[in-house]
Amino acid sequence: MYDERNLLLMTPGPVPIHPRVYEAMNRVICHHRTENFRKVFMECIELSKYVMQTENDVFILTGSGTAAMEAAISNIVEPGDEVICFINGKFSERWFEICQAFGAKCHTYSVEWGKAITPDIVKKAVEEHPEASIATICHNETSTGILNPLPEIAKICRENDLILVVDGITSVGGDYVFPDKWGVNVLVTGSQKCLGCPPGLSLIMVDEQAWEKIKNRKSNKFSYYVDLERYKKSLEKKRETPYTPAITLLFGLRESLTMIKEEGLEQRVKRHRLCGKALREGVKALNLPLFEDENYASNTLTAVSYPQGITDSQFRGLMEKHGVLVAGGQAHLKGKIFRVAHMNIIGEREILTTLATMELVLSEIGWNFEPGSGVSSAIKIFKNKL
Amino acid sequence: MYDERNLLLMTPGPVPIHPRVYEAMNRVICHHRTENFRKVFMECIELSKYVMQTENDVFILTGSGTAAMEAAISNIVEPGDEVICFINGKFSERWFEICQAFGAKCHTYSVEWGKAITPDIVKKAVEEHPEASIATICHNETSTGILNPLPEIAKICRENDLILVVDGITSVGGDYVFPDKWGVNVLVTGSQKCLGCPPGLSLIMVDEQAWEKIKNRKSNKFSYYVDLERYKKSLEKKRETPYTPAITLLFGLRESLTMIKEEGLEQRVKRHRLCGKALREGVKALNLPLFEDENYASNTLTAVSYPQGITDSQFRGLMEKHGVLVAGGQAHLKGKIFRVAHMNIIGEREILTTLATMELVLSEIGWNFEPGSGVSSAIKIFKNKL
Repeated sequence: MYDERNLLLMTPGPVPIHPRVYEAMNRVICHHRTENFRKVFMECIELSKYVMQTENDVFILTGSGTAAMEAAISNIVEPGDEVICFINGKFSERWFEICQAFGAKCHTYSVEWGKAITPDIVKKAVEEHPEASIATICHNETSTGILNPLPEIAKICRENDLILVVDGITSVGGDYVFPDKWGVNVLVTGSQKCLGCPPGLSLIMVDEQAWEKIKNRKSNKFSYYVDLERYKKSLEKKRETPYTPAITLLFGLRESLTMIKEEGLEQRVKRHRLCGKALREGVKALNLPLFEDENYASNTLTAVSYPQGITDSQFRGLMEKHGVLVAGGQAHLKGKIFRVAHMNIIGEREILTTLATMELVLSEIGWNFEPGSGVSSAIKIFKNKL
Repeated sequence: MYDERNLLLMTPGPVPIHPRVYEAMNRVICHHRTENFRKVFMECIELSKYVMQTENDVFILTGSGTAAMEAAISNIVEPGDEVICFINGKFSERWFEICQAFGAKCHTYSVEWGKAITPDIVKKAVEEHPEASIATICHNETSTGILNPLPEIAKICRENDLILVVDGITSVGGDYVFPDKWGVNVLVTGSQKCLGCPPGLSLIMVDEQAWEKIKNRKSNKFSYYVDLERYKKSLEKKRETPYTPAITLLFGLRESLTMIKEEGLEQRVKRHRLCGKALREGVKALNLPLFEDENYASNTLTAVSYPQGITDSQFRGLMEKHGVLVAGGQAHLKGKIFRVAHMNIIGEREILTTLATMELVLSEIGWNFEPGSGVSSAIKIFKNKL
């Protein structure tokens, strides 16, 4: 019964998708170099600007979030450029890997996975590397459940004239991200997380300062498929993408972004925050320790440590058997934590379902907890909108 | 009535898609890091090898055909490598542009658009540049309707130890392409042409000789999202892609590739060739001149010159008004030619529909032709399977 089509996806992408989005995608294909499609495409761009809360350029690429990350680095970074990479998980580490691939001289500042990049660390990095011109960070570290304090970090970068490149793949559309207000220069996100669409599209915002850096390059740009100047030219001259886009997915994206606008970003963020809080309280009531530093807990993903006596294969295997898919740990956290995403159309019903199923699984395992405590703790949060 | 959802797409991607493929895509999303999905993904890989007629490695990227082209060049070409680029249209020119972006020293051999790259030209190039290590070509030039004689060209390249990188975006799945037999080292294609899927996926085949070149690189590889070594490692170790793939489209691709296998590649190529021949005969009977050199006519796309007295906006506008979308010319051929694709599930019915509609449009324009001659000429071909 609980086969692959009938699992509640509490995973950080793909996420459960609203039937409206499926319906929007399930249509006869049309040609992309037509007025009708240009209209659809430009609606996607305008809605993306709303969801990203920006008046800067936004481009939509056909590719995963990593494609947009590469677009950021391959366009902005010149070989030899000094880049400060803040690392507190797998996805912030990816910035570092991409920067290396494109010839940057990287200065890494790492904190233990599960901890946040604090303004102190950023200040230290900036002081130690005054010649750096770019900094990279992951806003919401999906691998560890940490929301880094981006407003404070961006402020320091701005004051020190650093171009700040931000992975907002699991924050945009689920948490507050105000690139224009905060001074984020480049922001990337993907279609399959809080934007509520299947995977295959990624978005990138580029501000004026980042454009200056791109336009003043002295060296060859090792980039073609994600060459942002080509995207800008096509968009402004033709209202098109330079290469054939994933047409089907763009119809889905238009619908999912429309739904975000209908809900309203403010309300949507509040819902995500409430779900995060409810899940964390429920998890703690079940005597399971949060992995993430709760002071910087993500509002779109919760990471939980396995206590002695519960193995990953047992716990996640049983969760799946009962119809709920949660994610495991990545890299050195494999087998040590599990991760529950609460993105897109996840609401109180799904959080309660997940906690109730966890109670079933934990009782099967023989874990010591007070029956009903997980669900009740979450209900308390939902009821009082804490 | 003939709105964007109700147009016969005689365009070179997107193409008409079989309902089975729509049905395969219209399903609840599943997670990509699961056994169920790995099975789907590996079926796509195996079916791709069948359609590409190869036993070499094949990888599936989330991105347009251009992403696979960039994968080829960014992995294989090192800055300073000498590359011979054969150019006879917009898409072969794209190889040159990508090679330049990645620092190659390019030697271009161009022929007039609408003509073929002949073995003579290849011989000359090879003799003039013995130090070149790579050559690029577009098998089927979609911008001009030319099928370059790849077997002969590949033979010369092989004899001269050149790595031959081929754009098979509009030939694979619609015409004969035997990379292993012919000695093609890298072959790329896209999902939305003869493979019969929506756009968003691209495929790349890499043979041993190309792998040698990649593995023996001395310089940095300016590539991450399309870094083929990452794809190979993920595929062989985990039966996965390194980054989140376009899950929905992979379900579609599995179905469309399955349909190709059911039809049989031999029969499928015969059908495409027959459609091409029928359309060309029909067009000529209507007193419209073929643009392409008919000795090298593509079997998946026909390019037709506008004679004096027929304008592009008038002709294609009326075709669309009557429900058939054909493509215009690109770059300097804009307004001078129109292009009719016959790919994927296009058969006799669609060719006859297109010719009949052309007769309607031409009679509205007042063009001089014998009524019924276009359709009759095509019927003669279909009837006799010429």
